[in-house]
Amino acid sequence: MFESAEIGHKIGKARYRAAVPPLRAALLGAQVDLFENGKIPVVVLISGQDGAGKGETINVLYEWMDPRFISTLAFSEPTDEERERPPMWRYWRSLPPKGRIGIFAGSWYSDPIRQRILGEISLKELDARADQINRFEAMLVSEGALVLKFWFHLTKEGQKKRLKALESDPHTAWRVTQWNWDRLKTYDQLQDVAGHILRITNTPWAPWVVVEGTDDRYRSLTVGQILLEAMQKKLASTDKQESPVAPMVRVDTDGRNVLSELDLKLKLADKPYENALAKWQGRLSELMRDARFKGRALVCAFEGADAAGKGGAIRRIGAAMDARQYQVTPVGAPTDEERAQPHLWRFWRYLPRQGHVAIFDRTWYGRVLVERVEGFCSENDWLRAYSEINDFEHEMADAGVIVVKFWLQISQAEQLKRFKAREQVEFKRFKITEEDWRNREKWGAYQQAICDMVERTSTGNAPWTLVEANDKNYARVKILRTLCERLEAELDGRPMPGEQAHAKVSTKKSDRAAKHAKSVEKRAAS
Amino acid sequence: MFESAEIGHKIGKARYRAAVPPLRAALLGAQVDLFENGKIPVVVLISGQDGAGKGETINVLYEWMDPRFISTLAFSEPTDEERERPPMWRYWRSLPPKGRIGIFAGSWYSDPIRQRILGEISLKELDARADQINRFEAMLVSEGALVLKFWFHLTKEGQKKRLKALESDPHTAWRVTQWNWDRLKTYDQLQDVAGHILRITNTPWAPWVVVEGTDDRYRSLTVGQILLEAMQKKLASTDKQESPVAPMVRVDTDGRNVLSELDLKLKLADKPYENALAKWQGRLSELMRDARFKGRALVCAFEGADAAGKGGAIRRIGAAMDARQYQVTPVGAPTDEERAQPHLWRFWRYLPRQGHVAIFDRTWYGRVLVERVEGFCSENDWLRAYSEINDFEHEMADAGVIVVKFWLQISQAEQLKRFKAREQVEFKRFKITEEDWRNREKWGAYQQAICDMVERTSTGNAPWTLVEANDKNYARVKILRTLCERLEAELDGRPMPGEQAHAKVSTKKSDRAAKHAKSVEKRAAS
Repeated sequence: MFESAEIGHKIGKARYRAAVPPLRAALLGAQVDLFENGKIPVVVLISGQDGAGKGETINVLYEWMDPRFISTLAFSEPTDEERERPPMWRYWRSLPPKGRIGIFAGSWYSDPIRQRILGEISLKELDARADQINRFEAMLVSEGALVLKFWFHLTKEGQKKRLKALESDPHTAWRVTQWNWDRLKTYDQLQDVAGHILRITNTPWAPWVVVEGTDDRYRSLTVGQILLEAMQKKLASTDKQESPVAPMVRVDTDGRNVLSELDLKLKLADKPYENALAKWQGRLSELMRDARFKGRALVCAFEGADAAGKGGAIRRIGAAMDARQYQVTPVGAPTDEERAQPHLWRFWRYLPRQGHVAIFDRTWYGRVLVERVEGFCSENDWLRAYSEINDFEHEMADAGVIVVKFWLQISQAEQLKRFKAREQVEFKRFKITEEDWRNREKWGAYQQAICDMVERTSTGNAPWTLVEANDKNYARVKILRTLCERLEAELDGRPMPGEQAHAKVSTKKSDRAAKHAKSVEKRAAS
Repeated sequence: MFESAEIGHKIGKARYRAAVPPLRAALLGAQVDLFENGKIPVVVLISGQDGAGKGETINVLYEWMDPRFISTLAFSEPTDEERERPPMWRYWRSLPPKGRIGIFAGSWYSDPIRQRILGEISLKELDARADQINRFEAMLVSEGALVLKFWFHLTKEGQKKRLKALESDPHTAWRVTQWNWDRLKTYDQLQDVAGHILRITNTPWAPWVVVEGTDDRYRSLTVGQILLEAMQKKLASTDKQESPVAPMVRVDTDGRNVLSELDLKLKLADKPYENALAKWQGRLSELMRDARFKGRALVCAFEGADAAGKGGAIRRIGAAMDARQYQVTPVGAPTDEERAQPHLWRFWRYLPRQGHVAIFDRTWYGRVLVERVEGFCSENDWLRAYSEINDFEHEMADAGVIVVKFWLQISQAEQLKRFKAREQVEFKRFKITEEDWRNREKWGAYQQAICDMVERTSTGNAPWTLVEANDKNYARVKILRTLCERLEAELDGRPMPGEQAHAKVSTKKSDRAAKHAKSVEKRAAS
């Protein structure tokens, strides 16, 4: 992996001086084209050894390009707002919008490498992280991004030399600290771990470029030329690069599916409803104040046909919580800032801090429901969305976020009844639009999309709960009960009932819960 | 102030039951109208004594309204991202967009009241904070917001009773802690301080509503009815509420002004330019690494006609900094998320953390320049913007942010020359647009707007530097030198040369710098 970066690459002064002006002009031109094209975010990772010229190279890129359309993100210690969310949150919030270049000084590779060197994670865990990274980068590329990953390499001897050279120059001496010298001691380990993760993440869609870091001119020119060529090629390629997907096949041999099997006649009379409501709301209220929840977070996802009762169910959940603890996010058309980002970005931004709750009224499943059925995105887009969504939910779960998802199912007849009733009620009039009536015509297509969604995204970490919602009483109680039982199981570190099939996942979950409980204890003690 | 909230207000169960359904329907209707109107953000402050029912009331409002269009912000300890920015940053980032309701549980009043009770600030300082709050709220109202401020009041006896009642009910006992009992001891102090600040901030545009907190039903109904009435009235009022402004008068007796007095012939030859550039860039680079800068931040504002050389100057500043330390923000048309907020919101969001730099290529002065000249906002809007901007910069300065502002002045002839030259250069072609040519026609109006801007917003904390920019060499060196000298003076806690007129401000600044230096020392020591 690093061999070609140890052969002593060098560029002479004269050659460098001649090469820079046309390169700079071309880079600026490409930057303008990128901005005007407005469809491609450029993600540049600058990583590698200390003293290999990461900071200098970024500064040179700034010199050559228009700094107004570049942002550089350095990731040192996470802030407390970052620490209380899944590890990838800080990277998601830093992604450049379409048309801009985002340089990552430090990236999603930093933590796994550091943790492996310190022995905090096993080789297997490192591999799992690499897999996760590969899927994340594939998602970026599928969403239109150009992802460029540079690794600046130095031999051990070369690193020692660079540090000494930096130290002896009064202009750069400040940059060398004891920390850098200490890092030299772990050179071999870094080489091992980096070599390993670079190999696994050297994907066709986001390959690594290893650059010899010894000679400033060689390094700058190499990075500049590669960046230019990559931008030009990406801008010139007219055919959309699509990740391979299998066609969606319909399993419908006997006409039965998870939705048709629901008993929509299930009902709960008002009296038992009121009792059950009070019981489960009381229980939920207690769970929200449970000390073990302080180190966790809750994400509730609500999907369902128009008038299925999402709003009413959300209201019953909210009534059991403190308004300061939860936030309801209604999901409609994306804002232009959201449109300039990968489709999951707008959900990442609303992830709750620890001890808090985010309730989504319509969710990231829009892509495999309305966007699929209405043709708002390509088939490839929604086909790959299933696994992107699974990754998203897995990352949340892995960080201790409890993900609960409800599909509220009503019959077409019930929907019609509710539409008509709503039109009578003054303060609910805004809820029925032309679009709602139109959506009814595609009932069948939606039912198919829902079955596929449940099939592909009901996971041990984040199972779907299908709710028979023709009767509002019944639906609300089922939702509250499911939510409470799930919270209890998660806080206790128990697998959910009926989750035996996911025994492995559940074990992991309980490890996680135990870890979280520990960290909460620690905090409470300090 | 509190008398009418001590008379034992009470609402019977029957009356309450009868009143809620129509109130709820009306509130939901008003919420829909608000959303559809899309021009008014509603800011509701819920404050008052512990145990006076703040949390309960917010929860009742959620029960009555659609929680999807409300957000509630609780402000406990600031996060580290908040701590490293001006105190108002956390409130700006939490403002509801137009069409939505934002409930503030805790607000910009909490800190001044707490600090005064603890004796951390003098009565005079409390008054200054109250003034600042008044101007902030006036800005919100001028930008279209409905600001409703509730103070829930209890007598001392009443508070004791409420706490005891909460404590004895197993459902609410968890809410009463030793902290609440301790607060009872400072009841009289809170009454004093709150009474004082409420009186000063009881403005015509954002008056306080003091509500007796003893009876749940009375409190809920009162808040609900006031919120409803205020929303309805605001929605019904067709005439735009404008804050009073004086007409802009032109002082032009002898035809001379700050711009005409600039010597645009000032030049610097290439050789001395290169030397000076190296010198000041070196100095700037040192200053950026100065330990005393770690507790400060730098905001550079660049304004100037098209082709005045802002980009080139910014590039020369950036070259002396580490790319990981600064961010350039080019200011163009606002995004739709920005349009849904007060005009300064989009600048607040980019304020740098401590030790960091934000460079703005065009700025918050757009409102008094392009928006004024092109008629993009009303006269009232830009006339009041001067003092809003001064407040904004004052808040930054007060938090240790060093604000440096440059106006780059070129002659019309020089601009024409540069436009023509640019059209020849391939990679700069994007810089000249139809609009740029059009703007030239309004040269005179722009010059007037610039003079007014300098007149009204060059303050001791954030003075304007007018740069003779016909010669790029001269301009760049002047900018770098000014920046370095300002940074040095700020880090030393010295007044700037020529700032004797602002002796008072300067003294304050040096106090501030000393305080900051101290806090940095502390941090370094720990």
